[in-house]
Amino acid sequence: MRLHGYFRSSAAWRLRIALALKGLAREDVFVHLRRGEQRAPAHLARNPQGLVPVLELDDGTMLTQSLAILDWLEETHPAPSILPEGAIERARARAFALAIACEIHPVQNLRVLNRLRREAGFDDAGVAAWARETNAEGLAACEALVADRPGGFLFAGRPTIAEICLVPQLGNARRFGVDVARFSRLLAAEAAALALPAFAEAAPERQPDAE
Amino acid sequence: MRLHGYFRSSAAWRLRIALALKGLAREDVFVHLRRGEQRAPAHLARNPQGLVPVLELDDGTMLTQSLAILDWLEETHPAPSILPEGAIERARARAFALAIACEIHPVQNLRVLNRLRREAGFDDAGVAAWARETNAEGLAACEALVADRPGGFLFAGRPTIAEICLVPQLGNARRFGVDVARFSRLLAAEAAALALPAFAEAAPERQPDAE
Repeated sequence: MRLHGYFRSSAAWRLRIALALKGLAREDVFVHLRRGEQRAPAHLARNPQGLVPVLELDDGTMLTQSLAILDWLEETHPAPSILPEGAIERARARAFALAIACEIHPVQNLRVLNRLRREAGFDDAGVAAWARETNAEGLAACEALVADRPGGFLFAGRPTIAEICLVPQLGNARRFGVDVARFSRLLAAEAAALALPAFAEAAPERQPDAE
Repeated sequence: MRLHGYFRSSAAWRLRIALALKGLAREDVFVHLRRGEQRAPAHLARNPQGLVPVLELDDGTMLTQSLAILDWLEETHPAPSILPEGAIERARARAFALAIACEIHPVQNLRVLNRLRREAGFDDAGVAAWARETNAEGLAACEALVADRPGGFLFAGRPTIAEICLVPQLGNARRFGVDVARFSRLLAAEAAALALPAFAEAAPERQPDAE
């Protein structure tokens, strides 16, 4: 499998973690988002949305959207599972992952920040404040969703899609200057996850295309 | 089951469709988003994110995030299925649904539009232009994802999560003034879906709280 991604893309980061958790080897292909390579014809042929990640299978099939790819991985390589046991707990883990993937990530991604520069006249400070506030508000809601859950990992005695989405989003939040110390339950889950090589080795600064 | 929603919420609309497709009765509870009822303590107790929809099960369990609830419905009430056959086709249908749920819907929802008013000084026209353009761009990407697929329904000979997410988003796009005529493949899927009572009866204007 080839993962078309970018070191700083938190959606690609999710897949680096999941592939490693499931023990699947990957070849990395780097798409430089800040240079606009995601809008080049070569990448648009892989994904008309002009986004990373794209997971290219050995037969050339291109899969897009990180959460859809996580479900595909779970269906085709079920062990170890990245979902909890039980339909209600799975619904809660999925809701937590979607609270990040639908409510935080899209509102602070490069495309929206560029739109704010172009259409709202935001400068660097304005963009940074927008990203910081949307991360802080969104993570506060995530903390509320899990505050009463004991232990390290959130929904099982092992990592699930919840941590796969959380760890990259906390990385984004710190990069945008959010004081994450008040999210104590989220930080406990992050610490449990980062003790595993699959999480530690997926960090942006450890990727070959890191700048 | 009780569905806490709002006639115009496209995420609640998705669940109205899915519950009807699966033949499941629901009791509606109305949360008036424009009056801010989603931020009242009663609703925050159901969902700390302050969002609709919330699906309340008969034992009082509250499920949140429409896509997580669709997965829960599929697990617990598998027939008729709202996913296609085959892991690759399921991945494509999920990616299409997420292209709406992650890339379009969050960038044009009420929370972001209110943030634009508050922090970017957008007026009604500015907010309307932002919503129109994000819908138009996002639906153009969706059209590209499925342009070469024959037939009415997108991923199966029956509706899936793709149409469940598409029909409400096309409704939003029209409301924001997008000229959707150029999205011919999406419109064909919408027409196939709206021929079914489950889709037709879920429309916002047919809900008791419509204004």
